[in-house]
Amino acid sequence: MNASSINLAVIPGDGIGPEVIAEAVKVLEKALAAEGVTLEQTHYKLGAQHWLETGETLPDEVLDDLRTRDAILFGAVGAAPGDTRIPSGIIEREMLLKLRFSLDHYVNLRPSRLYSSVGSPLANPGEIDFIVVREGTEGPYVGNGGTLRGGTAHEVATEVSLNTAHGVERVVRDAFRRASARPRKHVTLVHKHNVLVYAGHLWKRTVEAVAKEFPEVTHDYLHIDAATIFMVTDPSRFDVIVTDNLFGDILTDLAAAVTGGIGLAASGNINMDRTAPSMFEPVHGSAPDIAGQQKADPTAAILSAVLLLEHLGYTGAARKIEAAVIADVEARTGGPRSTAAIGDAIAAAL
Amino acid sequence: MNASSINLAVIPGDGIGPEVIAEAVKVLEKALAAEGVTLEQTHYKLGAQHWLETGETLPDEVLDDLRTRDAILFGAVGAAPGDTRIPSGIIEREMLLKLRFSLDHYVNLRPSRLYSSVGSPLANPGEIDFIVVREGTEGPYVGNGGTLRGGTAHEVATEVSLNTAHGVERVVRDAFRRASARPRKHVTLVHKHNVLVYAGHLWKRTVEAVAKEFPEVTHDYLHIDAATIFMVTDPSRFDVIVTDNLFGDILTDLAAAVTGGIGLAASGNINMDRTAPSMFEPVHGSAPDIAGQQKADPTAAILSAVLLLEHLGYTGAARKIEAAVIADVEARTGGPRSTAAIGDAIAAAL
Ligand SMILES: CC(C)[C@H](C(=O)O)[C@@H](O)C(=O)O
Ligand SMILES: CC(C)[C@H](C(=O)O)[C@@H](O)C(=O)O
Repeated sequence: MNASSINLAVIPGDGIGPEVIAEAVKVLEKALAAEGVTLEQTHYKLGAQHWLETGETLPDEVLDDLRTRDAILFGAVGAAPGDTRIPSGIIEREMLLKLRFSLDHYVNLRPSRLYSSVGSPLANPGEIDFIVVREGTEGPYVGNGGTLRGGTAHEVATEVSLNTAHGVERVVRDAFRRASARPRKHVTLVHKHNVLVYAGHLWKRTVEAVAKEFPEVTHDYLHIDAATIFMVTDPSRFDVIVTDNLFGDILTDLAAAVTGGIGLAASGNINMDRTAPSMFEPVHGSAPDIAGQQKADPTAAILSAVLLLEHLGYTGAARKIEAAVIADVEARTGGPRSTAAIGDAIAAAL
Repeated sequence: MNASSINLAVIPGDGIGPEVIAEAVKVLEKALAAEGVTLEQTHYKLGAQHWLETGETLPDEVLDDLRTRDAILFGAVGAAPGDTRIPSGIIEREMLLKLRFSLDHYVNLRPSRLYSSVGSPLANPGEIDFIVVREGTEGPYVGNGGTLRGGTAHEVATEVSLNTAHGVERVVRDAFRRASARPRKHVTLVHKHNVLVYAGHLWKRTVEAVAKEFPEVTHDYLHIDAATIFMVTDPSRFDVIVTDNLFGDILTDLAAAVTGGIGLAASGNINMDRTAPSMFEPVHGSAPDIAGQQKADPTAAILSAVLLLEHLGYTGAARKIEAAVIADVEARTGGPRSTAAIGDAIAAAL
């Protein structure tokens, strides 16, 4: 069923992106070679540095070229916080979000798991093992808003959250499908329907309707404010969280913090209909302060490659890398290792 | 300067609201009597129970009557989660939010402090003592949105966040003013300006402009997702947070969790221009599951009364109650006390 080669787009990006992606590619190549699968790579120069050199964010030809690949492995983009040469948010919106929206990455999948060797900031974290299915193509992220009388005392700025039955239903169904395949089979919808009535009720009604297709899956509802409380007082209660683009952004960073930091948090921007390649990226940013120093943990990038393999159907290779990552993480004693040393150790363990 | 009587509106509300408000009133009366100030009270029946009996949320005559009072002490409103007789969110929007918006409560003030005797879910919380100045009258809370083709496969639901220079500037200036009076003199703006460009830039530009009026106050910026990470990894870094209505809702529940729970979290919905009475309420909800059992902690309600006294200028009485509350909380050993016992102890200590 699987092809004997993967046509992979690699976008290393800025800061620590190239370093962590090098390790993810190293591990991917090794795991796939063992299965007789070739990894064909096309590298793309994109990101803040590329913008500084060329003024390009994501030209349409590059986007079209990316469409011809099987999947995209993405590092991180973003300039140093103090760098005023780059208009704020332009790379995020015109490149990262443009990719997510253009390639219809409607499932932004973010698993959270607490490894026994990894310290949580929580005193009694308990067992944490849940996934967040964050909507990736609509909500407050659509960029629909404006400014009236900008810069005057009468300025009005708007942001419009757009939510469609089509967009909500497909991601809710994906969440129930994933829950159905997990031991606890539970979906929690997170929203704020007591205030955001129109969007909130669309989400709530959709969950009620889709739940009927999955009688084996239980579900409940939490307002976003209550969900952040439970994320620190009882994160074990979560199995599958489904939520909108903005609430998902907030909850997954909090979840990463609670499970020991974004050095381990992987994500997939997935087009489940396979009308365009999906994109896999660590949740962390480009961390310019430690870039080029081999200090970054490539684990989040490697776990993102695991999600990539799962999506493409290479389940065997995915499970092998995941097992090697877990063994590596569980054996950590706290001593510092270089980015490459971690990648080498995981590759060697395959 | 202060009047010798306070004309107080009391809205006990639902669930544990009446119990905790009774203790707050008890403590207020005692503290004010010592200063020769009379507390005139007018009680208002409002909330979910009242809606069930009368179909009324907040009639205009009641709102007009409330306008004649010096301040409002508010308990909590909301039906039991499973109660399907009440349309979801109607009490919140047509009563609580209607009060905040109609009375122009633009400063939603929420202090967070970790008491040494109170357990935090964090392993190493450090010292926590910050305030959140949450905008209270605009943003995504304006109720501006709609549904097109509701209930069909082509439904579109929108939510519009409205932000004005007037609304942002007054709350940002309030935050800087409060920071200027605190030892650390630091303001953190929390938003998501890399995605919510129009609103985000209005907030950011306003902070830059207002900061010039307060050269003694330092300031920085965090995206909401990063702010939730710091809330669990390094909450000590915060002094004054200023943010919009929705991000403030999320951050203050998380902050309450991190500082040991919403049993201690007080809030003020403040109209700093004094064109209408301000309203003081515990952050917690009506907790119908423990209502009428004297199990609720009235401390959040009592600390809300402290904010009320501060707002009305009764600083001496405010400091006395606050000292009594801190002594009571710091002396806690974990044994259960009734709602009234806690109120009695704090009143006795005055
Ligand atoms: C960089 C930013 C636009 C992005 C987002 O908000 O989605 C990031 O925070 C993330 O979570 O992937
Ligand atoms: C009840 C609800 C409308 C309210 C809000 O979202 O503001 C509450 O969560 C709060 O924080 O006071």
